Amino acid sequence: MRVDGDTELIAHLGFPTHAFKAPLIYNPYFESAGINALVVPMGCRAPEFPQMLRSLFRLENIRGALITMPHKVRAAELVDELSPTARVAGACNAVKRAPSGRLIGDMFDGEGFVRALRRKGLELRGIDALVVGCGGVGSAIAASLAAAGASRLALHDIAPMCATALAQRLRAQYPQLQVDIGSNDPAGFGVVVNATPLGMSPGDALPLEVSRLEPRAFVGEVVMTAEVTEFLRQARARGCEVQPGADMLFEQIPAYLEFFGLPTTTAQNLRDLARLYP
Amino acid sequence: MRVDGDTELIAHLGFPTHAFKAPLIYNPYFESAGINALVVPMGCRAPEFPQMLRSLFRLENIRGALITMPHKVRAAELVDELSPTARVAGACNAVKRAPSGRLIGDMFDGEGFVRALRRKGLELRGIDALVVGCGGVGSAIAASLAAAGASRLALHDIAPMCATALAQRLRAQYPQLQVDIGSNDPAGFGVVVNATPLGMSPGDALPLEVSRLEPRAFVGEVVMTAEVTEFLRQARARGCEVQPGADMLFEQIPAYLEFFGLPTTTAQNLRDLARLYP
Repeated sequence: MRVDGDTELIAHLGFPTHAFKAPLIYNPYFESAGINALVVPMGCRAPEFPQMLRSLFRLENIRGALITMPHKVRAAELVDELSPTARVAGACNAVKRAPSGRLIGDMFDGEGFVRALRRKGLELRGIDALVVGCGGVGSAIAASLAAAGASRLALHDIAPMCATALAQRLRAQYPQLQVDIGSNDPAGFGVVVNATPLGMSPGDALPLEVSRLEPRAFVGEVVMTAEVTEFLRQARARGCEVQPGADMLFEQIPAYLEFFGLPTTTAQNLRDLARLYP
Repeated sequence: MRVDGDTELIAHLGFPTHAFKAPLIYNPYFESAGINALVVPMGCRAPEFPQMLRSLFRLENIRGALITMPHKVRAAELVDELSPTARVAGACNAVKRAPSGRLIGDMFDGEGFVRALRRKGLELRGIDALVVGCGGVGSAIAASLAAAGASRLALHDIAPMCATALAQRLRAQYPQLQVDIGSNDPAGFGVVVNATPLGMSPGDALPLEVSRLEPRAFVGEVVMTAEVTEFLRQARARGCEVQPGADMLFEQIPAYLEFFGLPTTTAQNLRDLARLYP
C-alpha cells in the first residue's frame, strides 16, 4: 500500500474505533486493484462530530466518509440530501460531496442484507418479512426490503416507539406496503431478521422463538461475533436457510464503492482479500 | 501496512499535496518497525486550516500533525505553546497535544540541517554562518544554528524586512549572538546556506557568488529537485564540503519521531526504507 500526496481519503468516523472492520476490507482491495484511496479510521466522539464532518469535506482529497456508531442518526440530519433508503432508515452511514458541494447521505446496511439474500437465489418481490430490532441497522434492513418490493413487513422492538416511528417512515415512503407492529412471532414469514444485538454477548437470550420459524424461511442475522451464531445454528437445525452477518457486511461494500465513484468488485473478492484477522 | 481501528494518525496538512514526501518516508518505516501509526496526507487550503487543526486534535486517535505550505506561520499562531526554535522561526511544522490538552508546536527543518552538518563532523559551536533566504526554512535553519551555539549569523533576503524581522527574533532569544543583515557575500563564512527557492526551476540564478566561497566552507542547500544542485556542484568544484537538501530532510525525521513520542531510528534507516519514487 503506497500512501502519497495523490491519495484520496475515505474518513471512517465513529467511536470507539477498536473493532472497525472497514479499513481491513477496503484498503487491501484498494492495494490489490491499484486504487489510490485509503480508509482512515478516525475516533470521533459525538460532540465533535458535526464540526469534524464539515471540516473533512473541505479537504481537497476527501472522497467520502463512512459513518458508524454513534453518528449514523446525526449524520442523516447534517447532510444536504438523503437517499430514500436513508430517509426511511432515519440514519446514514455513507456521505459524499456532490460537484455542487452539497453533502449526499446514503445507507447501505440494508442494501447489503438484500443483495446477500438475492445471491442465495431469493426473489424478494412480494415477500413477507419480520424484522426484530428497529434500531439503525434494523431500520436500514426494513427500508431496503421495502425498496426491493416486499409486500408486508412486521416490526418488533423492545422499545415500541422505535417500531412505531419506523413504521411511519416506511408508510410515508411506500404507501402500498403493509406494515404491522407488535409481536416477534416468526410464524408465517418467509424472511426473518435478527437486527438486535442479542447474540453479541455470551448467555444472551435468543431474539425470538425458533420453534415458531417456518422451515422454508430465510433467516438472517446482523450479529458478527461468530460466523454462525447460536440463533442461526438453531434456525438451520429447523431446516431454514440462514444468512450470517458477514454476508451482509461484504455484500454492501460494492454498493459503497459505487456510491463513492470508485471501481467496484465482487463481495467474494473483497472477502478473499480482507485482513479481518492479523 | 495494516490500517485498523487501533491505528494512530499523523495528519499531514498542506496544499497542494501532490509533492508530499512525508507519507513516503514515515509509513514504510512504521510498517517495517511494527508501529501502528499512519501519516495521512490532507489537502487543506488556508481558510479551512484553523478549524481543521482544532477538529483533528479532538480525534481520539490523533498522534500529531505535520504542517507544511502554506500553513507553517499560521500554525505557530494557533498552538498554545511554541518551542524556542519555533518562536524564533516564527513558524511551526509539527504539532502535538499535551496530556493537558494544550497544543504544542515545534519546528525541525533547522534541526535536520544542523544534525546533518554534525554527522559530517562539523563542530557548530562558535561558527560563523551566512543564511541566504529568510523565509520559513531559512528562519528555521538560522534558529537551529543559533541554538547549536553559532557565534555569528549573517542574514540576507531579497525582501530586507524578512531578514530584519528574523534578526530581531534571533536577538531576543540569543542576546550573545552577533546578527548581521545585508550582503549575500559568502567570503569569510564557515557555513553557507542557500535557503531560497533558487535552483528549483531550470535557468534559476545562483543564490550567491560561488567564487567568493571559502574553500574550507560547508555549503548547504534546501532545494531538493536534484541530489546535487548546480549551486552545490559549483561549490564542490571550489573545494567546499556540500550538504544536499535530502540530508536535512532525512536527518530531521528522527527529531519528529521523538517529538511525537514514537520509537525512533536513524536517518540512514529512514532513507533506506523510503519509497520516494514509485
